[in-house]
Order: sequence, then structure tokens, then C-alpha cells
Amino acid sequence: MKTTAIALGVAALALALPVTAQSGAGTTPGPSEIVAAAPASEWIAIAPEDLLVMTLAPGAEGKAREVVIQLMPPPFSQGWVENIRTLARAGWYDGIAVTRVQDNYVVQWGDPHAEDEARAKPLPDGLRVMRADAYTANATTIAIHEMPPSEGKRSVHHGRGDAYAEFTGFTRGWPTAYDHEREWPVHCYGMVGVGRSYSPDTGSGAELYTVIGHAPRHLDRNIALVGRVVEGIEHLSSLPRGTGPLGFYKDPAQNVPIRSIRVASDLPEGERPRFEYLSTEGETFARYADARANRRDPFFIVPAGGADICNIPVPVRRMGDE
Amino acid sequence: MKTTAIALGVAALALALPVTAQSGAGTTPGPSEIVAAAPASEWIAIAPEDLLVMTLAPGAEGKAREVVIQLMPPPFSQGWVENIRTLARAGWYDGIAVTRVQDNYVVQWGDPHAEDEARAKPLPDGLRVMRADAYTANATTIAIHEMPPSEGKRSVHHGRGDAYAEFTGFTRGWPTAYDHEREWPVHCYGMVGVGRSYSPDTGSGAELYTVIGHAPRHLDRNIALVGRVVEGIEHLSSLPRGTGPLGFYKDPAQNVPIRSIRVASDLPEGERPRFEYLSTEGETFARYADARANRRDPFFIVPAGGADICNIPVPVRRMGDE
Repeated sequence: MKTTAIALGVAALALALPVTAQSGAGTTPGPSEIVAAAPASEWIAIAPEDLLVMTLAPGAEGKAREVVIQLMPPPFSQGWVENIRTLARAGWYDGIAVTRVQDNYVVQWGDPHAEDEARAKPLPDGLRVMRADAYTANATTIAIHEMPPSEGKRSVHHGRGDAYAEFTGFTRGWPTAYDHEREWPVHCYGMVGVGRSYSPDTGSGAELYTVIGHAPRHLDRNIALVGRVVEGIEHLSSLPRGTGPLGFYKDPAQNVPIRSIRVASDLPEGERPRFEYLSTEGETFARYADARANRRDPFFIVPAGGADICNIPVPVRRMGDE
Repeated sequence: MKTTAIALGVAALALALPVTAQSGAGTTPGPSEIVAAAPASEWIAIAPEDLLVMTLAPGAEGKAREVVIQLMPPPFSQGWVENIRTLARAGWYDGIAVTRVQDNYVVQWGDPHAEDEARAKPLPDGLRVMRADAYTANATTIAIHEMPPSEGKRSVHHGRGDAYAEFTGFTRGWPTAYDHEREWPVHCYGMVGVGRSYSPDTGSGAELYTVIGHAPRHLDRNIALVGRVVEGIEHLSSLPRGTGPLGFYKDPAQNVPIRSIRVASDLPEGERPRFEYLSTEGETFARYADARANRRDPFFIVPAGGADICNIPVPVRRMGDE
């Protein structure tokens, strides 16, 4: 009897990974194979205006650390998204730091001196002050959401509720929850949100976090979500955990400096990262979501028959990698 | 306008953390305050026979890295649990390594040479070969599960199903899912499972993994779960991500050596870690689960009205810390 190093192999979320020889030949395609076979027409380029490039100070052995974030499209959180572009264009983020890494929860970055009025970095003019009702948007797409999947348009996952919402689904490439009136983005792994103080403060966008653990869905509708990490999350998720309360670094020397955050459209054309996501309204996404919910690759014995909204990550890839 | 470093503060899973001044005084107690107020009678000591101490090679600057794992009680996975005790007692784990770290998925450890028959470490005698039907157990407690929470015994969370199971709940301190016939433990953050090759292989316990991302519930009923990390998960979750397929380390020099894995009851009495968990059948757990599902601490505006089974982590603490 012998265990094998490929144990758990095809069970993995292998989207960005080569399909192993073992999982191919004559078997039902797994989620990653379905995505790899999508026609070019189902991939949607992300506008450079909607991509942020965050450059951390180099890591051990001078290794570059770059994180790419996709900002959220209308109708969600646009006031904060605009603030973030304003802050990036003012160079305000340059020199701030990652100050908090709480295991199974969030990595957070901002001005390490925000609490000290004398040393806090002054914010640029023109930031909007958002109200808490902007944490959700009108559920204008409700009619489409409720269409059964066989009639096209939406993924098989659509319409299923969970402990947090009456319905969950995907809108314009993003996981959302909704009821008959409102719709809102949800806190899945890698989503980026706006840190804030106690309500009625809603945060400006100067302090941001990303989820590095099980989806903290209790934050939905309580904080603004503004985007998601599409590349380089490992530079954040593998940082040493903070040992202070709430995972803040106890010693400021542990903070991880952020060199800059730039809107990709502000970079010289040759330096802009180019990404695309798989349309969540297409045929392929419906089949991908179904395969995530019913794993038929040879590793599996019992398909789940369903999937949590956060276990159907929307495929995003660098253009030129297809 | 100024952001504050405590942003997101009380939103945190703050179980092991001091309650901040802001969240106290006159407000409804949060989940961590409810747990802190539990009577001693609701805490259950974990038998030393059910604790594993895994010692990794020291980290940067010679820092000790110890991970404590609680093994699962009957009726779940006991064949594998026995194998793990056998392997630990044979010293078989000493010198193996962490070979795989896949972001938002698992950290896995085993014999780096398992694939190479000439170099693979021979397994000790006496290991049981388990069948896949042991991934689940008879749902003998179903009658209790179905009691409404007001009649005592079980948490308010009990009876709610999700995308993966007809019902979810807690049995003897562990998150489970069940239907009218079978019950099984679920893949939450920090759960420990048994790596295996393609079915009908079920794994021996020589190759283990822990979850470091969003709960991969599609693995439920497809792999044996044998325990959970109760201390030191940050030594695994913050390891550099592997850059090979499925997050395996490309270069064996990146493997993280495991010095030893011991059953706590085999350690000298003074060296045994002592842990206890909050009974999931008590009053306090019911109130804690309800508070996790309906956050009323001052940070929150909209309580979720529910919680995912994996967002109600069972409180576990070192004895002597109370």
C-alpha cells in the first residue's frame, strides 16, 4: 500500500493549471477543461480603467510582488470605485502599507498613521462621501435572474438561495446575492472591500482589504465591495499573520510597504496588464458552474449536486495566455 | 475625512482576541463575549489521545513552528484515525514534509518520495484499509437533530440545509451534514483530511492535508476527514504557495520538513498540550451560533439572518487560558 503525491490531484481548483494526463481520455470534462474550450467570443476584455496594479516592496531575495485588482462595474459601489481611482491618480496610496493579516479572514492595507491626526496622510480633494444604502443596488436584473437556466442567459446556479440571501447568482461577471428589490456583491475569497469605522461612516476607499479565508458573508450589505484580486493574491495571503488584536502587526517594522497603486489605463500602453473574464451569461459558464456543482472527473465518487456561490469562482485570465 | 486603523475591527472573528472597549458597554454581546462568559461546565476537555502535535522545522530566524490537530471522535472516520495514531507511534511521519501549498485550497504533507517505489518510505504494519462507505456514518442522531432549537439540545443552526446537503448541524463538537440516513463531517477551514489516489483507493493516513481557503465542500463524502487544526494553522496557511501544478513545490528544496508528529498522550505529561472545546449541545453554543448568524455588535447595520455551517467555527481553546 502506497500513497501517491497526486492524491487530491484533480480535486483541485485547477483553472490555471495544466490538465493532468490522468483526468483526460474518455472521461467527462472537468470545470477547467470546459473553460479552456470556451470560444473567444465568450471572453470579455477588462477595460484598463477597471484594473489596478498594486506594487508591494520586493519580498525575500528581492522578489517582485505585484497584485492586480479588477474594479467592480456599475451598478455596484461606483462612488467608492471612483474614489479609488482618484486616490490612485493623486499618488495617495504610494507609501502606505499592509498593516493587518488575520488568518482565515482579511489582509488590510492603508495609512499606518491614520489614527494619529498629526501624522495621518491628508486625503486628496474630490472624494465622495457615500451612504450605506449604496452597499446594495436596485435589482433591475431580477426578471432575467429568475429565468430557468434551460432558457439560456444565466447559469444553472442562478436562483438558489443560501443562509445569507433569498437568491444568489452572477451579474456581469460578479457573484451577487439578491431579493426582489435589491442586489449586492458578496464576500467571496479574493474580493476587495472598503475598510470603515463604525456606522454611519462608510469608508472612503483609502483603507482596503481582501478576503483570504472562508467567505465572511456576514459582511455583505455592511461594507462596500469594490473589486477582486485577479492576479498575485498569494503575495497577500501568504504574508505572516499579525499577532496583535484582529491580526494587526504589533511592530510597525512588520508592515509591508506598498510602493504604488496605479490605474492600468494610466500606465504606458506596453506596461498595462491585460485581462479578460469568462462571460457569466454564456453557454460555457453555465456548463462550468454545473460541473463545479457536480464533479464528474474520475477523482469523485459522490457529486455534490450543488455549489456555494463562492465555490464557483468566475474564470479570469491574462490575455495572451489562451 | 479620515479612515481609521480599527476599520473592520469588530467585524472580525475575534474569538481569541480581547474585546475592544468600543464593543462593550451597553451593547448586545458579540459572539466572542458570549463564548467568554460560558460556564466551565460547557467546556469539554479533549483527550490527549485525540491530539496530535506536529513540529515543523524552525522557520525564519529559528522560530519554532508547532501545529496542534484534534482528531475526530466516533462515529466518524475511526479507521483512518487509528491509522494516524499507528503511523505517529511508529515514528513514520518524522522526516516527511509539506510538499504542496495551493492558494485558497489546501496545504498537504506526506512522503516526498511516495511516487518513487525505490525511495518511498515503507509503511508500518497494521494499517487498516478503509472502504469509501466509511466516508459517512449512520445518522443515528437524526431524531435529536430534528428537534427545534427551543427544546434545547441543539444549536439554532441545526436543520438548515445548504447547496451540499439536506441538513447541516453540529455533532459532538464537529460541523456535519446529513440526510435521513447518513451523516458526515464537512470540509471547513482548518479541517484535516486524508489524501488519496483515484477511487477505490481511500488513503491510509500517511498523506494528510488541511483546508486553507473557502470550504471545498465538494470534497465532502469523497475523502475522509479526520480532524481539525486547533492551534498553529498560520504556520501552514502562510507558507509560500507552490508554483508547480496543483500547488506542489517545484523544487524539493522548498518542501517544509516535518520533524515529528506525536500523539499527545505519548508525550511526557508536562509536555502535553491541553485543549478544550465548547459543547455544541449547550446553551452557550446555541447563543453563540445565533450571534454569528445575527451580528448585533455596533459595527453591523444589517444582520445576515443566517450563517453558513463553516462560518460558525466551534470554539476551541488551550486549557488554562480561560
